[in-house]
Parts: sequence; C-alpha cells; structure tokens
Amino acid sequence: MQKFGGSSVANAQRLERVAGIIYSCAKKGNRVVAVVSAMGDTTDELIELANKINPDPPEREMDMLMSTGEQIASALLAMAIARKGRPAISFTGAQVGIITDQHHTTAKIRTIETKRVHKELSGGKAVVVTGFQGMTKNKDITTLGRGGSDLSAVALAVALKADVCEIYTDVEGIYTADPRIVPDARKLKCIDFDEILELAARGAQVMHTRAVEVAKKYDMPLHVRSSFVPKEGTMIMSMSKDKYIEKAVVRGVALTENEAKITIADVPDKPGIAAQVFNELAKVHVNIDMIVQNVGCDKLNDISFTVAKGSLQKALKTVKDIGARMKAAEVTYDDDIAKVSVAGVGMRAQAGVAGRCFSALAKARVNIDMISTSEISISCVVKKEAGKKALAALHKEFGLSRIKQ
Amino acid sequence: MQKFGGSSVANAQRLERVAGIIYSCAKKGNRVVAVVSAMGDTTDELIELANKINPDPPEREMDMLMSTGEQIASALLAMAIARKGRPAISFTGAQVGIITDQHHTTAKIRTIETKRVHKELSGGKAVVVTGFQGMTKNKDITTLGRGGSDLSAVALAVALKADVCEIYTDVEGIYTADPRIVPDARKLKCIDFDEILELAARGAQVMHTRAVEVAKKYDMPLHVRSSFVPKEGTMIMSMSKDKYIEKAVVRGVALTENEAKITIADVPDKPGIAAQVFNELAKVHVNIDMIVQNVGCDKLNDISFTVAKGSLQKALKTVKDIGARMKAAEVTYDDDIAKVSVAGVGMRAQAGVAGRCFSALAKARVNIDMISTSEISISCVVKKEAGKKALAALHKEFGLSRIKQ
Repeated sequence: MQKFGGSSVANAQRLERVAGIIYSCAKKGNRVVAVVSAMGDTTDELIELANKINPDPPEREMDMLMSTGEQIASALLAMAIARKGRPAISFTGAQVGIITDQHHTTAKIRTIETKRVHKELSGGKAVVVTGFQGMTKNKDITTLGRGGSDLSAVALAVALKADVCEIYTDVEGIYTADPRIVPDARKLKCIDFDEILELAARGAQVMHTRAVEVAKKYDMPLHVRSSFVPKEGTMIMSMSKDKYIEKAVVRGVALTENEAKITIADVPDKPGIAAQVFNELAKVHVNIDMIVQNVGCDKLNDISFTVAKGSLQKALKTVKDIGARMKAAEVTYDDDIAKVSVAGVGMRAQAGVAGRCFSALAKARVNIDMISTSEISISCVVKKEAGKKALAALHKEFGLSRIKQ
Repeated sequence: MQKFGGSSVANAQRLERVAGIIYSCAKKGNRVVAVVSAMGDTTDELIELANKINPDPPEREMDMLMSTGEQIASALLAMAIARKGRPAISFTGAQVGIITDQHHTTAKIRTIETKRVHKELSGGKAVVVTGFQGMTKNKDITTLGRGGSDLSAVALAVALKADVCEIYTDVEGIYTADPRIVPDARKLKCIDFDEILELAARGAQVMHTRAVEVAKKYDMPLHVRSSFVPKEGTMIMSMSKDKYIEKAVVRGVALTENEAKITIADVPDKPGIAAQVFNELAKVHVNIDMIVQNVGCDKLNDISFTVAKGSLQKALKTVKDIGARMKAAEVTYDDDIAKVSVAGVGMRAQAGVAGRCFSALAKARVNIDMISTSEISISCVVKKEAGKKALAALHKEFGLSRIKQ
C-alpha cells in the first residue's frame, strides 16, 4: 500500500515520478495499491468555486464536488503507470467499496469491500484508489475530512492485509523537531504510534492523527518517506513489540503557535463550575487543549485553557456569557502564545523528565505560563516570541541532535 | 426534463441563470430533472492533461477522468439551485443508475433505474444529473461519446416518462438555415424528427443525431431553446401525428465544408468491386457519406464518394492499396468542396423538388459535382467557394425566409 499526497502529484512531471515509484515496486513482484490525493491546489480551487456560487453550500453537494479532485488524479496516475508499461486501473472510493456513515464532509469509514481490488491485483494490474472519499449505503458520495487520504490508505491497507502502508510526502521522514526551526534536528529511523500521536497533537505536522490511530489499532506499520528522494524514511510502528527501542527518553519536540489562551478570573470555588464551562464549550464544538485551574485567595479560582485560534471568537463569546452568569470578575485572552512539547514512550519508565524540561527552559530564560503533562509527553505554554528558543533548548537538553538514526 | 449544454454553464454567472430557469420551472409545480454537461472548456482541458501524461491513454481511464467534468457542473448547479431556496440534489450517471455496455468512450445506454430520482422528486427536490456518462454492470464508469449529454437527457426523459425534454443551448431554436450564412433565415416553430435527422446528417449543427433518433423511437418531443433568452424555441416532434403541418415542402437547408471527395478512376466494371472498396473502408472505421458511380467508356468505372475530412488520410491509404490491386488508373481526392442540402418531410408527397434545386443552383451559376437524394432530402456537392452562395440560392428558392413561425 502506497499513499501519495497532493504535493507529490501536483503536476504532470510529479505524477510521472510517482508512476515510476509504483512501477518499480510492482516490477519487483509486489502487489501495489496506491491511494492518491487531489493534485496540488485542486481542492482549494473547488472550494473557492463552490463559495462563489453558494456561500453555504449543502454538504452532500460539497462532497460530490470535492471528490472529483482525487478522481482526476487517480485516472491520470493510472494513465501514467500504463505508459510505463504496467497495466493499471483506477477506482473511486465508491467503486472500491469504501462504505462510510452519512456524515458528509467528515464521514467515518464503516466497511471496505476488497473483492474487486484483489481481482485486479491477481490480474497483474497496479491499482490506484482515490483517497479522502467513500460512499454511503445509499450510494451518496462522502468525504472523510482533513487528513482523509491518509485514512483511506491506512484503512485499505488493513482491509487488504498489506505488509506496510507507505506514506509518500514532501518530507523525508519524521524528525526530532521541525528542521526549519531546529537546524540540527535528526530524522528518526522509527517512532512509536503513541509518540507520533502525542507529537501530532502538540503541533508536529506529519500525519493526521485519525490515520495513525487506525494504524495503531490494527498494528499496521506506516512508512513516512519522500516521493522526491529515494531514501528510507521513518517507520511508525509499535515499538514495545519491536526489539528496536532506543534509549532516548524523549524522541521528539514540537512547537505550535496556533493556540490561544482564555482565562476566567475570580470564579467562585464551587464544585461543578469547571464542568459547566467545558460542557457549554463542547456544545458549541470548541475543542479544548490544556486546562489549568488555580485556587486564589478568598476561595476564588482562576481557570485558564487553550483553544485553537480559529475557535477563539466562538469560545470567548460562550465563556463571557457564562462568566456574566457566574459573576466571575473577568474573562481575558492571550493569542500571543506558543506551546512547546516533548514526547517519548521512554518517559513512562523514567522520572525527572519534567524537571529537566523546566530547568532547560529556565536556563534559556524562558518563562513558563502553563504546564500540562500526559504519560508520555510534557507541554509548556510560553510567550510566542520565546517559542523557537524554547524548542531549541528542549531539543538540546534531551540530546536529540545526537540521536541514532 | 431539461438539458443544459457546456456553454450554458460555462461560468458561475451562467450557472446561476440556469439555476433560475430550473427554480422557476419547479416553482410552477413541475417535477424538474436537469441534465448538465461539463462547464465550458473543461472537457478539452482534461483531454489535454491526459495527452500530456499518456498520448495513448487507456479508454477506461479516460472515462474515469472525463466524467469528472459533468460531476463538477452538477454539484455546482445543485448548490446554485439550493441557494435560490429550492432543495436540490445531484447524481452521477452511475448513482442514478444509467447502465451502459462496456464500450468505453462510446458506450451505449442499456437500462436506466429511476427509483432514486422518483424518490427525490417526490420529496420536492430538483434533481440534477450528470450528462454524457453511465456505468457498466461491473461498476466501471463509461462515457457516451459525442453528443452524449443530449442522449442522457432524452434517455432519462423516456425512462421517467417526462412530458417534454427541453434542450437549452446557446441558440434560440432551429432555423431554416444557419443565420450566420443566410441572414434572412427564420426560426422554425416546430420540425419533424426526420427533418432534423436529415439536416443534422447534412451539416446543421443542432443536436446530435443519436439523441434525436432515441427521441423519435419513443416519440419524446424535444424543445430546443435558448438558456439566455426566455423565448419559446423549436419543438422537434412527430409532425405526421400532429395537425401542425406547414405547407412548405422544404423546411431547412444546410451546408457543410467538413467533407472531402475521393475518386477512383478507371476501375474495371465487374460486379462486387464497389462492395470490396466500401467493405474495406468499413473495416478501418471510415464512414462514407455520398457515393456516385459512373460507367465510362471501355467498361471502366469511376467511383466517387465523400468522407469526413478527419478520415481522409486513412481512407486514401486504404483506397490506394485497393486501387493498386484492382489496377485502377488513379486515385484522386478533392478536399476543397462543400455540400448543400435541402430537407423536408413534405418532399415525400411532392415531385419536382430536385428539379427546382438544380435550376436554382444553375441560376446562381453554381456547378454541381455530385448529387445524392433520400426520400426527404437532396444534397449536392459543389466547389467550396460556391457553398454559401448555393445555400442562399436554395433558401430563397423554397421561400424559407417567408416561412410561418
């Protein structure tokens, strides 16, 4: 199973390169199924076209429209493979039998038929499948939402019992930190499902978490690699099962500047208050990331939490309404923040990682605003201008530039 | 049933106008199904893209690619109708159950399921269906070839037992002659299926003949009208059934400059020679239009026939091979010709039409090179530079500029 993202098939030349990768793999005797995204900016162009015609388009029709992007890329890729001399056949999500629920634009895969794909593979064909889409039982076309093509690839790999699901992209693999920010970041040879999930949730832009979660659930190894450079990339797999466990306690660091902090000051310290705040936010579909609550003087609390910047206005409106009802003194926000995180499954077995984080940040003269920890990660909110410095300090502290590849 | 061609939906503004036509029709209480072509030049752009990647693309993959053009237009049209306040739903040929044979790029419709369309119409929705495409029993996407969207519309109209199939286009109806060539050409109020078939075969560019043939077979009236001007257009129907028969013996004239003439000179006059020539041309898929054979002196024949200019080279090669085997003196060709035709079901009952044609052309000093007649039409091949003059002369001779609308 191979998956190619939009940038890998952005134009005719790149499509030909991708066809070459598939052709070579098939020539070695492998049965190859390739999942492909829409070419380059196709998806954005289709959204723009739709918005021109209807600023609030019906979601079913959006799916009907959007699904054409992958269909075009799939047909062209099959043509490119055929030209290299390998028979190839393309399928839409509907044709290949990817059955989803009825939630247009964010559908979930229910089942996958594999009969037709197996038949074509047995006939010696390379099979190309449109990513990002499926169909309901009622034959309506659906799309899977952000990161949907990764999800299609992983789900198909599981259904077809593939050996590995290769995710071809425009980076060479997964790094200990974003190399644009930390120049001595190193490419990892492999990483655990849980580590990549933590890093992705904390701002590392590699694969969408839904796809990794499905891969983890079915223990399907993922190989993140470049479609431009013929090198091994990074294996994402279950590391506990594997002998290959490195000693490094922290395996990667991540930075995100896409969050904003909201603080409700001087809330009466009564049970159920926090629950009320976060239930009402959930009702308006605001996802919360970090939460910190401090008990102040006079039994008054401060509650701070972070949300994606895109949800800030909606969250503020809701919180201000609640704040008024609760007679909280003040609702403030700060969107000039950054969040730095470290993650590694090794943290489960090793104490003192949090202390090392805080010391390293202090040494770099970075003030910590909020802290949150999970079993295998630690995140700190800092001022936005200190974000990159903080990331570099953590990367250095845990020796990630010297990690074995 | 309404059908909108590519020029009617070429951009967002035009799509909105089309949505307005459908909305108004539905608001009057009609159940509306609209068949739509790809927007403007989409189809040509997709072909160009494919040729860049594979100059000889597999036909199944071409269909997969081409079908996206209508899918995009359908989804956008449904969005535009929804915006006007009418719920709308779009379907691909596959979803709506247009089952075809397996001849990719030139598939023929076998059956049409109408259950889902009826259900949505009963639910008060306007239904939009992609033209030009269907799917095989095996769920492979097929396209119907040139004029395929007209065919989809007529076949759906028949399957859904529609009252009429409106063909919206960029002209206001069917004229007695091409108004760009004959300025006093008049729009016809109605025309017989047979007349339009003759005129289309003889160069009038109105509707594809396959669609008209299906409409004739099932007696489905077609209404050819403008998507830009809200006026009645031309009804294509069975005129013999209808009281509305005009007295004009000729109902339209047509001109084509897209044919070329091939002549095989001095062929031995033996039985079966013509058969051999045309059988071999059929084998290489060259369609023949007019055929004339003259017996010359010494029992040697000249055989002349016309083919579409696009087939000229292929036809010449075949004919030269045969000519050499038959010891024919010479194979020549002339692609500097035009064909003028007159057609009208009234010709069945009236003699002397051919004589009037030839006199009119003689009076206009136009030499006739070849003649061919059917029950309801007469065609003459003339020099290309005389084509327009000949057309005007015939239009005048049969009083078509004074025809009742």
